[in-house]
Amino acid sequence: MTNFFLGIDLGGTEVKLAIADAKGNIIEQSSMPNSFTSDPKKILPQLIKRANNMKYINKVSGTGVGVAGDVDQKKGVLRFSPNLPKWSGIPIGKILKNGLKHRVVIDNDANAAAWGAFWLDAGGKAQNLVCITLGTGVGGGIICNGKLYHGTTGSAGEIGHITIDPLGPKCNCGNHGCVERFIGAAYLSEAAVSAIKNGRKSILPGLVGGRLDRITPRILDIAAHKNDKLANEIWQFAGEKLGIIIADLVNIINPEKVVLAGGVSKADGLILKPVIETVKKRAFKMPARACHIVISKYTQKLGVVGAAFLAR
Amino acid sequence: MTNFFLGIDLGGTEVKLAIADAKGNIIEQSSMPNSFTSDPKKILPQLIKRANNMKYINKVSGTGVGVAGDVDQKKGVLRFSPNLPKWSGIPIGKILKNGLKHRVVIDNDANAAAWGAFWLDAGGKAQNLVCITLGTGVGGGIICNGKLYHGTTGSAGEIGHITIDPLGPKCNCGNHGCVERFIGAAYLSEAAVSAIKNGRKSILPGLVGGRLDRITPRILDIAAHKNDKLANEIWQFAGEKLGIIIADLVNIINPEKVVLAGGVSKADGLILKPVIETVKKRAFKMPARACHIVISKYTQKLGVVGAAFLAR
Repeated sequence: MTNFFLGIDLGGTEVKLAIADAKGNIIEQSSMPNSFTSDPKKILPQLIKRANNMKYINKVSGTGVGVAGDVDQKKGVLRFSPNLPKWSGIPIGKILKNGLKHRVVIDNDANAAAWGAFWLDAGGKAQNLVCITLGTGVGGGIICNGKLYHGTTGSAGEIGHITIDPLGPKCNCGNHGCVERFIGAAYLSEAAVSAIKNGRKSILPGLVGGRLDRITPRILDIAAHKNDKLANEIWQFAGEKLGIIIADLVNIINPEKVVLAGGVSKADGLILKPVIETVKKRAFKMPARACHIVISKYTQKLGVVGAAFLAR
Repeated sequence: MTNFFLGIDLGGTEVKLAIADAKGNIIEQSSMPNSFTSDPKKILPQLIKRANNMKYINKVSGTGVGVAGDVDQKKGVLRFSPNLPKWSGIPIGKILKNGLKHRVVIDNDANAAAWGAFWLDAGGKAQNLVCITLGTGVGGGIICNGKLYHGTTGSAGEIGHITIDPLGPKCNCGNHGCVERFIGAAYLSEAAVSAIKNGRKSILPGLVGGRLDRITPRILDIAAHKNDKLANEIWQFAGEKLGIIIADLVNIINPEKVVLAGGVSKADGLILKPVIETVKKRAFKMPARACHIVISKYTQKLGVVGAAFLAR
């Protein structure tokens, strides 16, 4: 029997399903919409049905779920999700296990991505690895000694909430000056909009037909590649801020690899160059030299294949 | 045969030796002077002789060494020590093993202290623990899943070099705004001296007979307990800065326990209260509630017994 695994990336706007082989190749995939107000009592039976209708489901020996929120991995319970408020306390693991009739593992989505990065980007070889997901929020997952590290209550890896400016602006988490408050996607866009409103010249307004609220990291990326000075400055700013916390992580965790994933990381060299320069300037020499900082080559499937690998 | 272990705390001014039982009780101890310019070719044979002359050495089944510097734990080599410049590259493990005729493990001194805190302060029960040593420098050691965590090159745990002010003053490590640059012993004293020179009223000058260069954390502690406002403000400042990085560590590592050790931590409640308040304000609620922050009850022997336990 071929050994396949089902990965489920349970997000606030979409649920992605993928059946992967043991090497991380996606054999079959599917998706269904989800929403902020969705009711788990309706969505989970639909999800089970959709999974059980997949062509290769009979070859699946286990399912892994990555979900944006605070997960009790041991009990398989989603304790709390800011994106799925009605899902708090739902024993997703147990419900899916009953419906799928095989082993189900659930974890935080950034942990699933880190597990994916460990296997896909590092080939399972970087025993200590940090994965940073750059998007609306800044998430993280840590591999220690070849294993996903969860910490005491399964809350480890909240890398986006390292303080880089104790007197800085208030973050959604309640703290002040978290790195996420500077380089979360919305804040990068905000920095661009604010500069434009203050009279900075840029091709950005032209790229969004004057609708400044449509400036996203993707648009910033396009503008920067067209040599727009403002857009380049924003990537430089983002890379420096990110470099500060990666230098912290190099000094604390001494990882062999740091993998950047998620939407913002698509800006490739634009963010990677200042990151690497900042780490070189700020971190201890020995662990900095030992640490390879890369952009994931698998950003699109990291979450769902990482989830599948949780069950491997 | 009773199972004893020899711990060696190899510092820049003193070498402490202690034979401990499996519970961490010190059975016998000794010490010898060391210095910045000391030659390992002279000191190590003296150390071996001193150890072999200890009364209970025949009951010792292994030796652990904690040394201030960058250690290659696997090879037993001190790569580099800022306090013992002539010791770079010395295979301490091999030399001691030849002289002591039993197993020798060497590690960084903050890691040895963390291992001591794990067993003495946490009874071997806090599976994830961070130990922070507060003295001239700010050091750290991390226990993950019940094991001392070394990272890729044995450099993990450099907690004193987390950046809390990216534009802050230059640290000895080359970075700017490391927490050590604010709360290392000399900087706390410096803050007091600077305030006094700027006209702040305080009982501190009286406590040191006007010799401001004699203001140490110990003196700041005495003054604070006599309700000196300046001294109290400095402890508040130190606790808040330390609280920022402990909040970071709570979010990243999600430890069950954070143990503060070393000279500065003797100021007990003075530093602990603002630390706990800051962590409560800044860290995520779930991991903050799960994390117990304490001052080590064993600061005096943490390093040497922790070293002995490395060989247990």
